[in-house]
Amino acid sequence: MEYCFGVDIGGTTVKIGLFSRKKGLLEKWEIPTRKGTEPTPLLKDIKYEIEECLNRNDLKKEHLAGIGMAAPGPVTEDGCLRGTVNIGWGDVFLGNEAEDLISVSPIFIGNDARVAALGEYTFGAGKEVNSLLMVTLGTGVGGGVILNGKILAGVSGTAGEIGHMTMNPYEEEQCNCGKKGCLEQYASAQGMVRVARKVLVNTDKPSVLREMDVLTAKKLWDAGKIGDALALELTEYISRMLGMAIANACYIVDPEMVVLGGGVSQAGEFLLDMVQRAYAENVFPHCRDKKFALAKLRNDAGIFGAAALVFQSVN
Amino acid sequence: MEYCFGVDIGGTTVKIGLFSRKKGLLEKWEIPTRKGTEPTPLLKDIKYEIEECLNRNDLKKEHLAGIGMAAPGPVTEDGCLRGTVNIGWGDVFLGNEAEDLISVSPIFIGNDARVAALGEYTFGAGKEVNSLLMVTLGTGVGGGVILNGKILAGVSGTAGEIGHMTMNPYEEEQCNCGKKGCLEQYASAQGMVRVARKVLVNTDKPSVLREMDVLTAKKLWDAGKIGDALALELTEYISRMLGMAIANACYIVDPEMVVLGGGVSQAGEFLLDMVQRAYAENVFPHCRDKKFALAKLRNDAGIFGAAALVFQSVN
Repeated sequence: MEYCFGVDIGGTTVKIGLFSRKKGLLEKWEIPTRKGTEPTPLLKDIKYEIEECLNRNDLKKEHLAGIGMAAPGPVTEDGCLRGTVNIGWGDVFLGNEAEDLISVSPIFIGNDARVAALGEYTFGAGKEVNSLLMVTLGTGVGGGVILNGKILAGVSGTAGEIGHMTMNPYEEEQCNCGKKGCLEQYASAQGMVRVARKVLVNTDKPSVLREMDVLTAKKLWDAGKIGDALALELTEYISRMLGMAIANACYIVDPEMVVLGGGVSQAGEFLLDMVQRAYAENVFPHCRDKKFALAKLRNDAGIFGAAALVFQSVN
Repeated sequence: MEYCFGVDIGGTTVKIGLFSRKKGLLEKWEIPTRKGTEPTPLLKDIKYEIEECLNRNDLKKEHLAGIGMAAPGPVTEDGCLRGTVNIGWGDVFLGNEAEDLISVSPIFIGNDARVAALGEYTFGAGKEVNSLLMVTLGTGVGGGVILNGKILAGVSGTAGEIGHMTMNPYEEEQCNCGKKGCLEQYASAQGMVRVARKVLVNTDKPSVLREMDVLTAKKLWDAGKIGDALALELTEYISRMLGMAIANACYIVDPEMVVLGGGVSQAGEFLLDMVQRAYAENVFPHCRDKKFALAKLRNDAGIFGAAALVFQSVN
């Protein structure tokens, strides 16, 4: 069948896209995320949006190959979305619930970072490769592994969670997850600011970073780009943590390509080069020449990946 | 076809086993590893041994489903054995060379730690699961990932190399691989002794470890078991590094089971419990209840895994 919907459920908005197998993304829009203790109200909103969209395009549910959904929590191999803090639900087989409520089948479900990785693999930076690791540098650090075109979900749904890899066994501050020393504490937007603030307090070195009212990850990378010495030291330290974590992950799955995405990755080639150099310093010569790329689909990676979930499984 | 050979090429000996699909391992023996700049002499030795074995069992090459081989170096997805320091060869498509020389086809080739993992998966500790990570604690630290019954090789052949995951970005001594802070520096037999020696020099605490002429990993774990306080501190530190590294790996592949093998794993349940506890302290609640097991096939994991390479691919 020719059409499908890709739905990306985030903590604040739900992005929805109508896709054609031949023509790709036809239209996209977003609605606010309705929060609650169970998913029915939100699924009803999605059902309404999808039915409206089918009507205005003169399409019927029979024209749909299915619906793909990305959600902000671990999703196990058998489709269970584990307790999602961001939205407020407990464990739920979201695909099954959505199929019953929306009366479309099949409905596929995946973790948002993993689905975004599938989006980049199928339609973005990874179109030419067979396997990739995507690392999403946003408020947190997410990740996803694609092997032979399929998301690696894992038995507990946590395959790809590179953000909570322990990178520093001697860290004293706590990560949001409760552990200490997670990559996220150094390489998320929040973590980068944390690292920078700590260094700013402990040194007298001059830096444009001192003059800022509100320090952000973007401003830190911008300062690095214009050659501010302290900002450069910081971005190199952060890149070293990231490069090491990616090297660690590649020692486990050894994919063909590494894709960097998420808001912070908009620091572009400057960031990509630094991270790739740090990666190369931390692996065997055999695997030093791995392909690195910036994500291409930006905020649409989730809906593209959700569409890929459908089109790769249904003819 | 009913029979195959499993061959495990090590730095000092080559283990060979004749397997029947129905009856399992029929006989096994070993020969010294002939070293050289290319594999032909060693392959000729293996050919001789295999032909002798077929003769004494009244079998012909036509009865063979194939031969599986494990080798001490990274093996890429397309079957290239990368430069093996232990034996002295450069990059070689060992399976193809062996097929030409031995006149048996197909001949499968895999990295020794990955093949051992497949052995445990098919015939040993992992018989009941669908995916596993095996960590081999020997002179070095090796590893292998099995997903849906297949070895995850990776594009460069380094998938599973958990021993060279960076666990301590502040380590000052160098690993054999040239990097600093690899798991192997803490959790290999050599690494454990290194850690213990360093602590012994820097503390006055009494310990039976001080009275030993030659400290070994086995003696360290034995001292921990009888309650020597310093040995316990050391085994807990080592287990923490191991548990963290396994947690890091599980955040990438999230398998159903973790198997600990290799000589040091003979410290048994005492070691397994400590490592599993350290693992659980370093992961999300979702994945804390992962299955942990000790390897069962010991030194035969390689030949069993090599046989599995054949039987899983050839009917």
